[in-house]
Amino acid sequence: MPKGRLLYAQSGGVTAVINATASAVLASARRHRVHALWARNGILGALREELYDTRKLSPAAVKALAHTPGGAFGSCRFKLKSIEQDRARYERLIDVFRAHDIRWFLYNGGNDSADTALKLSKVAGEMGYPLTCVGVPKTVDNDLVGTDCCPGFGSAAKYTAVSVAEAALDIAAMADTSTRVFVYEVMGRHAGWLAAAAGLAGEGEDEAPHLILFPERAFDEAAFLARVDAVVKRVGHCVVVVSEGIRHPDGRFVAEAGGKDDFGHTRLGGVGPLLAQLCKEKLGLKVHWTVPDYLQRSARHLASKTDLAQAMAVGKAAVELALAGQNGVLAGIRRLSDSPYRWKVVAQPLEGIANQEKTVPDEFLRADGFGISAAARRYLAPLIRGEAPPPYGKDGLPLYPRPRLPLLPRKLPEWTG
Amino acid sequence: MPKGRLLYAQSGGVTAVINATASAVLASARRHRVHALWARNGILGALREELYDTRKLSPAAVKALAHTPGGAFGSCRFKLKSIEQDRARYERLIDVFRAHDIRWFLYNGGNDSADTALKLSKVAGEMGYPLTCVGVPKTVDNDLVGTDCCPGFGSAAKYTAVSVAEAALDIAAMADTSTRVFVYEVMGRHAGWLAAAAGLAGEGEDEAPHLILFPERAFDEAAFLARVDAVVKRVGHCVVVVSEGIRHPDGRFVAEAGGKDDFGHTRLGGVGPLLAQLCKEKLGLKVHWTVPDYLQRSARHLASKTDLAQAMAVGKAAVELALAGQNGVLAGIRRLSDSPYRWKVVAQPLEGIANQEKTVPDEFLRADGFGISAAARRYLAPLIRGEAPPPYGKDGLPLYPRPRLPLLPRKLPEWTG
Repeated sequence: MPKGRLLYAQSGGVTAVINATASAVLASARRHRVHALWARNGILGALREELYDTRKLSPAAVKALAHTPGGAFGSCRFKLKSIEQDRARYERLIDVFRAHDIRWFLYNGGNDSADTALKLSKVAGEMGYPLTCVGVPKTVDNDLVGTDCCPGFGSAAKYTAVSVAEAALDIAAMADTSTRVFVYEVMGRHAGWLAAAAGLAGEGEDEAPHLILFPERAFDEAAFLARVDAVVKRVGHCVVVVSEGIRHPDGRFVAEAGGKDDFGHTRLGGVGPLLAQLCKEKLGLKVHWTVPDYLQRSARHLASKTDLAQAMAVGKAAVELALAGQNGVLAGIRRLSDSPYRWKVVAQPLEGIANQEKTVPDEFLRADGFGISAAARRYLAPLIRGEAPPPYGKDGLPLYPRPRLPLLPRKLPEWTG
Repeated sequence: MPKGRLLYAQSGGVTAVINATASAVLASARRHRVHALWARNGILGALREELYDTRKLSPAAVKALAHTPGGAFGSCRFKLKSIEQDRARYERLIDVFRAHDIRWFLYNGGNDSADTALKLSKVAGEMGYPLTCVGVPKTVDNDLVGTDCCPGFGSAAKYTAVSVAEAALDIAAMADTSTRVFVYEVMGRHAGWLAAAAGLAGEGEDEAPHLILFPERAFDEAAFLARVDAVVKRVGHCVVVVSEGIRHPDGRFVAEAGGKDDFGHTRLGGVGPLLAQLCKEKLGLKVHWTVPDYLQRSARHLASKTDLAQAMAVGKAAVELALAGQNGVLAGIRRLSDSPYRWKVVAQPLEGIANQEKTVPDEFLRADGFGISAAARRYLAPLIRGEAPPPYGKDGLPLYPRPRLPLLPRKLPEWTG
């Protein structure tokens, strides 16, 4: 049994398969006879010394994590600043790691957590503390560099493509006397990956989604309305997918452009309802809209089998990279071929990954900017392939057990930073 | 082969399983060697003489309808008025029926279509035209009387309970540093059946959904906010499910209460975003909200097996009732026992069903009005039991083929009514 302990933590928005990564981390640690701890609420649990001893989880509980969405012991939105600005926090982390003999740290998240893992590995080096930090990718936004795709994205992409396809059949059936324009708002503040994934729901300009609005393109109201009008006249109805983060040419978010009303209240609703309202007012068409919000990132019932496999593979690889002493790397996914789809997990230096953002490249957008290209389909298609439903109980609900553990006894004074 | 033809049509909002009813109608008609037609866009197709000859659908296409959401040949929102006010339309319908030798009419819908089927059977009688009209229940709102539950509801209920359970795990993981209050808006303008179904996601006051707001109870802003505040303090976060149709004590819809802004524009968004905004402003909590909208009624990928079986059973029974000459009845579902859940399809007179609305009874609400009772669980639980996923293609998307047929040649002048 290797000396020292491994600490695993989750960061940022959770996904349908982040616990699958955790499941693979714990299973892999057990195989290597490594004592694995899990921090409550991400890096905050490490700062607060709120740690769980995962050896107390039964093999069945570890296995069940692979089909349970959300973050089993909590995640956090908490970004450490630069080492200079936040030195006390970094040093506190090393103190906690030293107190619990933590030699390996696996941080499962997006850009911010890659950044945290990288800085922590540097501070540990400066302080002469032997620590190996490995980043484990996760984000439905799919905007991490250093990995071909991000675990969590494939399942959210599948949810989006399936939901758009289903809603489109509904609209098609009703359009003669009811809704003509349906607006579907997807997550993606800066990168339009989920918007692009919606494009997998149909092919050709007459199949839904008829229009996709990407944050990578400035919103052109006149062009948008003209296109909706043309689609409704040609097809009878129009399904629009819009990324929450589309902006006006001057850089303002469209969702915020409505701004505040005369009472100073922020306008309700996101960009989806706003575009629907626009179509209603300017084109006189009956509209409906949906904002699936967290449903799109927690829909474990509709997980992609490919995504699940990748979520587990990066967890397993991260443990192996850590034990091999590969410090300051991300367990990234490298695509070997599109068709047949082949991939493997490789170590990528965190330097150069942290604080980057991978947006949808120009060649993935259709020439008119309102749809996806064949290249985008080649990239996206494999990521939603295969089904991996959770087991269901007799009550008709998925079995999503929530593991419970007591916190480890503290060894240090309470953190008040 | 019986003389004459059978006409099937769909009405009102479509569901995840209305095509399953259609599949059973066509299969049953074929077994009885009855020539079945299908009207495009519901009763409008009958008025316009836009009819399909379903004999041209392959057995595989008929079978595939059972796992395809939406309305295969369209539905409509079109309510015929009283016989006195709309006599020309009723007479036109009989003219079309006579021209195509239609002796049996199956109308698959909610309250309005039960009403249409009933009136049509009366006019046919007055005009001496031999017609048997049978209503076939369908509505995610579950508000039809004369049937214990409505096909379509069970699947929407399952979608709602599963989605609330999944989103709740997300919120629980993030609440420490992010969203504290999550508002989930369900369909249900007058009846809170889908809101009630959300209650199946958890048990006890500390499990999500922590609060359900029913249209059967007047909205009390102060009581609502106090309850949210208490739940957040006790549990750390709060999942609220709200029916789109909740009203203020004076009867105004809460969703409309925001009314128009100073420019006369209707406020965007429904009651979900509005309540989220309220929690943000009055309690200072970070909020998120979702409006699944059509996703909840078209999610065939998450259909309830019980619901699917009932959708097909009412289709089969409706054909048999029609052929047996049972005029002016609904193929309703009668519950025989809760546990084990047993039910059968029975003929219920349409008289007394049409234009009624079944709301959630008092005894199904928890004493405080913010949750469901044990009696509600006994009623609801069997309806979401069992999974019946559609087949998926290699591309990771469900196989939802859209059948295509040419319209039957017209026999009458174009309808211009």
